[in-house]
Amino acid sequence: MANTDTASVRVFSLNCWGIRYLSKHCPQRYAMIGDLLSKEEHDIVLLQEVWSEKDFLNLKKKLACSHPHCHYFKSGVIGSGLAIFCKHRIHDTFLYRYSLNGYPYMAHHGDWFGGKAVGMAVIKIGSMTANVYVTHLHAEYCREKDSYLPHRVVQAWELQQFIRHTSAGADVVIVGGDLNMHPQDLGNRLLRAYTGLRDSYLETANFDGCEDGMTLIADNPFISKKELVPFEKGIRIDYILFKGSSKTDMHCDSMSTTKGSIPDHPFPYSDHEALTAELRMEPHTPTEPGHDKKSMDQDSGKVAELVDILTEARTEVKVGLHCAERMRYTATRTGIMGLALLFLELAIAAVPWLALGAEQPFPRTSFYLLAALCCAILLTTFLLYIFYTMELKSLQGAEDQMRLAVGSLQEKLRGFPLPQPYSTHRKPPEGQEPSAFDPEE
Amino acid sequence: MANTDTASVRVFSLNCWGIRYLSKHCPQRYAMIGDLLSKEEHDIVLLQEVWSEKDFLNLKKKLACSHPHCHYFKSGVIGSGLAIFCKHRIHDTFLYRYSLNGYPYMAHHGDWFGGKAVGMAVIKIGSMTANVYVTHLHAEYCREKDSYLPHRVVQAWELQQFIRHTSAGADVVIVGGDLNMHPQDLGNRLLRAYTGLRDSYLETANFDGCEDGMTLIADNPFISKKELVPFEKGIRIDYILFKGSSKTDMHCDSMSTTKGSIPDHPFPYSDHEALTAELRMEPHTPTEPGHDKKSMDQDSGKVAELVDILTEARTEVKVGLHCAERMRYTATRTGIMGLALLFLELAIAAVPWLALGAEQPFPRTSFYLLAALCCAILLTTFLLYIFYTMELKSLQGAEDQMRLAVGSLQEKLRGFPLPQPYSTHRKPPEGQEPSAFDPEE
Repeated sequence: MANTDTASVRVFSLNCWGIRYLSKHCPQRYAMIGDLLSKEEHDIVLLQEVWSEKDFLNLKKKLACSHPHCHYFKSGVIGSGLAIFCKHRIHDTFLYRYSLNGYPYMAHHGDWFGGKAVGMAVIKIGSMTANVYVTHLHAEYCREKDSYLPHRVVQAWELQQFIRHTSAGADVVIVGGDLNMHPQDLGNRLLRAYTGLRDSYLETANFDGCEDGMTLIADNPFISKKELVPFEKGIRIDYILFKGSSKTDMHCDSMSTTKGSIPDHPFPYSDHEALTAELRMEPHTPTEPGHDKKSMDQDSGKVAELVDILTEARTEVKVGLHCAERMRYTATRTGIMGLALLFLELAIAAVPWLALGAEQPFPRTSFYLLAALCCAILLTTFLLYIFYTMELKSLQGAEDQMRLAVGSLQEKLRGFPLPQPYSTHRKPPEGQEPSAFDPEE
Repeated sequence: MANTDTASVRVFSLNCWGIRYLSKHCPQRYAMIGDLLSKEEHDIVLLQEVWSEKDFLNLKKKLACSHPHCHYFKSGVIGSGLAIFCKHRIHDTFLYRYSLNGYPYMAHHGDWFGGKAVGMAVIKIGSMTANVYVTHLHAEYCREKDSYLPHRVVQAWELQQFIRHTSAGADVVIVGGDLNMHPQDLGNRLLRAYTGLRDSYLETANFDGCEDGMTLIADNPFISKKELVPFEKGIRIDYILFKGSSKTDMHCDSMSTTKGSIPDHPFPYSDHEALTAELRMEPHTPTEPGHDKKSMDQDSGKVAELVDILTEARTEVKVGLHCAERMRYTATRTGIMGLALLFLELAIAAVPWLALGAEQPFPRTSFYLLAALCCAILLTTFLLYIFYTMELKSLQGAEDQMRLAVGSLQEKLRGFPLPQPYSTHRKPPEGQEPSAFDPEE
């Protein structure tokens, strides 16, 4: 649909840290968040870690006037924790559950049970169609030895795939959430380079908030400084990203974050800082003639950069593959040992002379305890084998898709004219689209 | 991208029944399939149930000349079994795993382990962008009492969401696969009504194949007639669907299926029949003036039909919800009983007078066996509880999305003029698009 208006939207994003009975001051904080939202009346509110549907329903009740349209995305065992509140009608929703999301036996980390995903809502702003995405990626518990890195890279890969493929019909794209990635982390670069999404913190000239746009800061009383090491002051892991389309240009007029404490309140809204961005949309201005050559060089540079990022991502996924293979091997070996032990025990019990002349017969108590232990080992290793096989399939699948994408991009690169000083403006081979590395841009 | 050419593609789809060591004559059938494909040189080949990657790699080797581009989609424990071979370069791929797919403890049905999904490949045919989808839905093991129906309806719902949202940028859409649904089944109606996909069997004037386009027939030697009851001759559950776009019209020139036996071969390619469709694409012809009123009435009828189908689907999902809730309740109750039994046993062992004057002390063997049994019950019911909770979340999520979609469609319906004989051609309210019930069409 063609757009003729200029419009602006205020977007809010917050990781609510809403684990009932575990997160500190949870009900009070939700009340504060509800008050803020009904007062501020943002156009689009993107929340993460709303783990309890009851809390969502309370917010829904409170925001019935300011935000009549909302959706709660359900996934995993307790999640996905993603919610969207909106002044504009939500016409359609879609949820993509990431194929990898940590390990169920790491219950204290809880990510697996949350069923991390990306939720999409299609809304109309005036005559424009906006695709709005809210997501939350796997947490990073230890930056030095981050065993979840391959999972997070695959999540970033799937996130960019989902956004890229579902947003072709949209006039504008808005993405908000807790990516659990620093600005220059691999997954973040992959996401931005592939989709062409722009970071509202980097794009705005009008920023008011924490130093360097940080969203997890040492000054927040819910944050222990130990978690942040080696980053003394804090890190930036929550984002509001956006892009326009061939029909609509999008700009970030201003951006702000909360700064730890909140005036007149004893504690902040969450352990994360809240983000607010004011985005302006206007009809696309066609580029001036003579811009083509420059744009082509830029695009060629972008494709080359994307190939490098993808190569790096493939390496990280391969590390994950190696790790998952080793874990599956260990599970298999342990399972086989459990089976062997069970057979040996049964053999000793059935054929007494195998007990090698021990004076005592095989004691019954030990027999049953040992048998139960063997069965427990067999069951556990069987379940682990299944789980690791599924992890391997997902990692291999992502690696295959990345390899195919690299091939396609390299073919595109071959279609660009060489950046030699004497090269004239050559036409690319037929069927090639030199400036179309991102089909949506 | 605008298209100026007329082009045609031949599309092939087959459920290969490729379970190594279990499916009859598996290697021979793969050899036959390879021979057929390299001889026939279809543009696009969509295969399902290629469960072993080795078989895919063998086919890849054999088809290196006729189909230089291919992709194997990985998912679940052994699957997803989906593969695509193509004459044209595959530029991009994406996989969506269905959130519901049967039960892991129904191992003899195997669907859960297959990780059913829909795979997408973006290819260029001349100057046209084609989004090609291959999928395989959960099998129907008993039509009279189909306990998997809610899962299959949710799969159909997710399939239409995936196709609708990812195909906005495509000139043409081609979908092939084993839907495990009869032509008038709820999921099939939902898929076709929502996406606007057309069934090549119904669209072609030139059909050569089994009666009524059946793809699982009694004449196939791999099919036991018992499976087909109450359908004597067979059923139609495999499809090639297609649609054009605002830029491209698409037609089915001819369609054919295999007919059970294959000349000069001792057995057929698979237990399913293979489908071939010849699809022609040409630039979109704009509708003549005065067509608007008729089209609006048609669209209003279509939206009303869609609301009815969605209401039916919601009912089915609610049946699934009720069932999953009951199962989770049973698992919880059994778990609590296991725990109570364990406590009772420990109490009896610790406090002998609780044995109520029995002459024998608590026998050690029984004690350990009973304790092991209690632990097994606790572990199993805990795992089942987790699984059913995830099932509930997915069913609730789908139901929420359907409810939201019904609301949006009903709002659209209110925008249509009433089909009264005296009604003049009224303009719909501002901001409404009467003919855009499917945003991609």
